[in-house]
Amino acid sequence: MVNIAIMGHGTVGSGVVEVLNINADNICSRAGQQIRITRILDLREFNDLPYSDLFTKDFNDILNDDSISIVVEAMGGLNPSYEFTKALLQAGKSVVTSNKELVAQKGDKLLAIAKENNVNYLFEASVGGGMPIIRPLHFCLAANKIEYIQGILNGTTNFIMTKMVKDNFSFDQALELAQKKGYAEKDPTADIGGADANRKICILASLAYGKHIYPHEVHQYGINDITLADVEFAKSMGCVIKLIGRATQLENGKVSIMVCPVFLPVSSKLAKIDDVYNAVVVKGNAVGEVLFVGAGAGKMPTASAIMADVIYAVKAENTSISQSWDSSDGMVVSNYREDIMRFYLRLKVDDIEKAKEFIFEKYESPVILSRINQPDDEIAFKTGFMLEDKVKKLTEELENNGFKQLSKLRIID
Amino acid sequence: MVNIAIMGHGTVGSGVVEVLNINADNICSRAGQQIRITRILDLREFNDLPYSDLFTKDFNDILNDDSISIVVEAMGGLNPSYEFTKALLQAGKSVVTSNKELVAQKGDKLLAIAKENNVNYLFEASVGGGMPIIRPLHFCLAANKIEYIQGILNGTTNFIMTKMVKDNFSFDQALELAQKKGYAEKDPTADIGGADANRKICILASLAYGKHIYPHEVHQYGINDITLADVEFAKSMGCVIKLIGRATQLENGKVSIMVCPVFLPVSSKLAKIDDVYNAVVVKGNAVGEVLFVGAGAGKMPTASAIMADVIYAVKAENTSISQSWDSSDGMVVSNYREDIMRFYLRLKVDDIEKAKEFIFEKYESPVILSRINQPDDEIAFKTGFMLEDKVKKLTEELENNGFKQLSKLRIID
Repeated sequence: MVNIAIMGHGTVGSGVVEVLNINADNICSRAGQQIRITRILDLREFNDLPYSDLFTKDFNDILNDDSISIVVEAMGGLNPSYEFTKALLQAGKSVVTSNKELVAQKGDKLLAIAKENNVNYLFEASVGGGMPIIRPLHFCLAANKIEYIQGILNGTTNFIMTKMVKDNFSFDQALELAQKKGYAEKDPTADIGGADANRKICILASLAYGKHIYPHEVHQYGINDITLADVEFAKSMGCVIKLIGRATQLENGKVSIMVCPVFLPVSSKLAKIDDVYNAVVVKGNAVGEVLFVGAGAGKMPTASAIMADVIYAVKAENTSISQSWDSSDGMVVSNYREDIMRFYLRLKVDDIEKAKEFIFEKYESPVILSRINQPDDEIAFKTGFMLEDKVKKLTEELENNGFKQLSKLRIID
Repeated sequence: MVNIAIMGHGTVGSGVVEVLNINADNICSRAGQQIRITRILDLREFNDLPYSDLFTKDFNDILNDDSISIVVEAMGGLNPSYEFTKALLQAGKSVVTSNKELVAQKGDKLLAIAKENNVNYLFEASVGGGMPIIRPLHFCLAANKIEYIQGILNGTTNFIMTKMVKDNFSFDQALELAQKKGYAEKDPTADIGGADANRKICILASLAYGKHIYPHEVHQYGINDITLADVEFAKSMGCVIKLIGRATQLENGKVSIMVCPVFLPVSSKLAKIDDVYNAVVVKGNAVGEVLFVGAGAGKMPTASAIMADVIYAVKAENTSISQSWDSSDGMVVSNYREDIMRFYLRLKVDDIEKAKEFIFEKYESPVILSRINQPDDEIAFKTGFMLEDKVKKLTEELENNGFKQLSKLRIID
């Protein structure tokens, strides 16, 4: 019999109770033991549940209970999650979490503490909801040098982009529908601004490259500014627009990492992943490209990923087998201005001919694009491979010439 | 420092040496220790390799070498692989294999022996080559009741079917090209007849349902008889034809399991997986559908999956954490004649009107299909859901009425 506690009885925490209830037979048979929830930490009142007696408001009731060997942290945020997790690991309890913010900010430290104390800190649910990616990346692809990781890591923005590309919804219409369906929060900033995807690509890249990469080191750009005009130009090139997280190891060993909306050819693996699905492509030097697809969020998928980690922690008792990576010296991430990419640019111009002259003179192999209902003062083009820094400088020059840059997106294969 | 041995220096075994060579840094850092190959068993001579001194023809050189803690079995076949693996596990060594035949036939026994001896028997490479599926299915989806597993498990037949569907190759032309490209063996029976996919779906289903399912219990049908006429009729329905392995748990708890070519709607996840790629869809009751895609075979992908298991065995030393399932009492698999499916049938008939009468009278909700260049004596139709047994009996009746059944395929969503 294994006793576990849950911290936080929101969507995810209550989902864990539910998954353990409906799948108790499977879970216990796979763990080889009965698993029982004996404590739930939450500051709110839950008086009408069949398991109301398990609730406590005092963290010490869990920390000091020696009969509890595994704790699920489903509180989210950095505080007090960090201090709680640290104390639990130091007390010899394994911790399982879906808290991507905490893992992305403090993963190196918590993994080191887990190792010191011969327990496990597990976070399969932190990326991709129920879609297995952390353990496959860490264990199954362990014999590969990871060339790149590229993924649709946020279901909300994928839903919005799908609506824009497939059904010609404007950004605002698509966001409204996402909120109505419960896919987007009232304040959708973390999703549409890219912060959520950023945390996830940090976790995946840290795992793949063995050094902690922090969210503030990532070049992050959201989908707020994407318009149907951009979607149309993408279509004219045989592309769709997706918000992706991407980490690539460069020849100098540094990691180029970004979260941004990009043009993807419709034939690419990720272009076909629609609605709220998440997907990750991992390229290993031995295995080639591997693709994972699944529900990226949601109560039951996320809770099932947490319970899988709990089972794993039960089976690996007294063995610190969790993934780990080193703290970083801040020298891991390359400057995104040194990236060499292809770009799509859309400009507002008074004089189209003057704009064309500028474009053909300054950009690498530009190709002018065309769309239906294109206004007379709009011009868009794609470029060949160019240094990001060069494109940035040209953006300033553009404005000095009386042009206005409306959109700039990267084009990725 | 961990010493390992390799049994069998064919494509896979030599690939393991190569992967360890090119990715030594990554592998050893992830394992937390140096990993060194100290013995290779093969009856053939390999005198010109830089590591020729490691070869032995005597299994006892590995079995009795206490410095070797992990052995890679890349010999294939049942004998002597079974006896060797058993002896190694009993001697306290973990064994890692890509031998799907052995796992599918003797997995339950070898897993039990591994457990008794507190070592691991690992076989990620046995299904899907480098595509992670065994460990994700076992660990990441452990908190789910698995409703079904459905996959393209054989790269050779997927290549052949892709060529037939996309490029109108005949079966013979497609097979010839597959052989020329090295995707199909000279004797392609195990691939095109479905035996290879059968072993793999047995392994996945045994893992998912916790009881050993043997290949001889699986309803197996190959792609030998598929013609371009069938491909055309599939297209007329918005479908492609793929050889899939499929295991579904029925309401009575039994498992319906089969390997056969099916009609899949082009919009389905598996329909889009072409060429030699493998893919598996797993539906869990909590997580929903999860999709895995990757190179299903090949020297380096398979070898990288083996090395990942070796790393895992190193990290889990002294812990028997490998997947396991119970021996089966032969009561797990349902009789496929009791399956309720939709069917596509193609007949050779002298009298089309008489055939239509028969079809509309005897089959559930039949829809007559039509294709370009359809001969006068051919009729094809799809049915609604019907008991397989009923369709089988109608096949006999058909022939008594002077019709000839040319094709029968299942239709799956």
